[in-house]
Amino acid sequence: MNITFEELNRFLEEQFPQGAAYGALEALGDGWAEMSLAVDEGHLRPGGTVSGPAMMALADVTMYAALLSRIGLVPLAVTTNLNINFLRKPVAHAPIRARASLLKVGRTMAVGDVLVYSDGMDEPVAHSTMTYSIPPDKYRN
Amino acid sequence: MNITFEELNRFLEEQFPQGAAYGALEALGDGWAEMSLAVDEGHLRPGGTVSGPAMMALADVTMYAALLSRIGLVPLAVTTNLNINFLRKPVAHAPIRARASLLKVGRTMAVGDVLVYSDGMDEPVAHSTMTYSIPPDKYRN
Amino acid sequence: MNITFEELNRFLEEQFPQGAAYGALEALGDGWAEMSLAVDEGHLRPGGTVSGPAMMALADVTMYAALLSRIGLVPLAVTTNLNINFLRKPVAHAPIRARASLLKVGRTMAVGDVLVYSDGMDEPVAHSTMTYSIPPDKYRN
Amino acid sequence: MNITFEELNRFLEEQFPQGAAYGALEALGDGWAEMSLAVDEGHLRPGGTVSGPAMMALADVTMYAALLSRIGLVPLAVTTNLNINFLRKPVAHAPIRARASLLKVGRTMAVGDVLVYSDGMDEPVAHSTMTYSIPPDKYRN
Repeated sequence: MNITFEELNRFLEEQFPQGAAYGALEALGDGWAEMSLAVDEGHLRPGGTVSGPAMMALADVTMYAALLSRIGLVPLAVTTNLNINFLRKPVAHAPIRARASLLKVGRTMAVGDVLVYSDGMDEPVAHSTMTYSIPPDKYRN
Repeated sequence: MNITFEELNRFLEEQFPQGAAYGALEALGDGWAEMSLAVDEGHLRPGGTVSGPAMMALADVTMYAALLSRIGLVPLAVTTNLNINFLRKPVAHAPIRARASLLKVGRTMAVGDVLVYSDGMDEPVAHSTMTYSIPPDKYRN
Repeated sequence: MNITFEELNRFLEEQFPQGAAYGALEALGDGWAEMSLAVDEGHLRPGGTVSGPAMMALADVTMYAALLSRIGLVPLAVTTNLNINFLRKPVAHAPIRARASLLKVGRTMAVGDVLVYSDGMDEPVAHSTMTYSIPPDKYRN
Repeated sequence: MNITFEELNRFLEEQFPQGAAYGALEALGDGWAEMSLAVDEGHLRPGGTVSGPAMMALADVTMYAALLSRIGLVPLAVTTNLNINFLRKPVAHAPIRARASLLKVGRTMAVGDVLVYSDGMDEPVAHSTMTYSIPPDKYRN
């Protein structure tokens, strides 16, 4: 692992100046990360369901965290492809959690997948696969 | 077309009680819709770039609008799969616009694709393909 | 598990009358399956690399096998969405192997993911996520 | 357009030494290509339906042709991501046709989409989006 939990936390706060709206880092390892999102009104659909875009956003930032665990604090890594399947309706008003794992880190791109869970349910509510583009000169395997 | 622009506008306001944060309906036809999003601080990444999740959210709701043009005001249609490719960096601080077109409306699912544009650029900034699940008894072709 | 290895083997032979070109069933459990493909000339690209379509075809049939382990011998289940990331170049002329696992089996659709391996490499060569449509009246959870 | 129809035809024959099994080039323009596949027994599922993998393979090679129209005869461009939605059941035993269009050609990757048609049907039978990786030093926009 090329960064610490605390270094990544500070970096994410700088990258997402909107405050905690992007989620909270929960755990970090070499090639994986876990983040949670305390659902607020802006993330809800009628009935209290967490919206699809809130799940996508959490999946996206969690993959970013997993990637940075391997390549270091690279600000210009960007998502180039995201595919997500929504599997089950999340628990109303409950926080959601994502766990991202890298499948490959190459010279110019990285691929990983993310499972999203809803507090109070055992089975995942969404599964996403993503590709990130890595700026070549910033790569520090 | 099974609904009017005004009917859909009212319906979206009820479905997204957060106000205009989901975007504004710009145009509607039989099997297609256009929506725009006035980018605010919550959608930005460092440098003023519109975030990927903001583009995904606009693509998602625009496809929903396109679908409703065909099946009517069905509240329980939900996204089951979304795939998106981010093609170009949007113009900083500029609104984004999405145009969704249906490729197929079946009995229980619909598929369509969406192009996302950034004001001030000719080429699309993102392309998304989505599947929506349609509650069977609500289907009114 | 609703079927045996032997029952599935016979069923696949009927469904794919071309002979073994679709791959060989290697292992089967409740919600998962493993299959292999002995690469022949028709699957190769210059340099002896296994083609992308050969990996996609093996991933697709392996997910079908995993699905049938749960729903029984349903001939009309069809792929509706397939997403695949090609991660690494397979070993030239070596067999490929796929392991599919279900993420969800609903009333009308099932979602799962597949890892594809190349004999002689530890890391996967491809990762795929798929949705299958299940004919409603054939469902026998 | 950086290549002619005839140059591409010869190049594809070298890249796919299996003969015509990969499809036939029908038309080529700047950033797009059309190819067809005369369905044979190896592509069929029970009932005479063209298999999903046959549609994926045709979509893949047609995107490759579209890409080469822009970057020239680069042998090492490879698919890194493919997403496909199967929309309708093709006509039994009828040829299929694909039309690929580029959405973006960058320095190291290209994105495009493909519609697949079945002879005798107006509506597309499949829609695919793909990313190709371009070897950097071979790029000749």
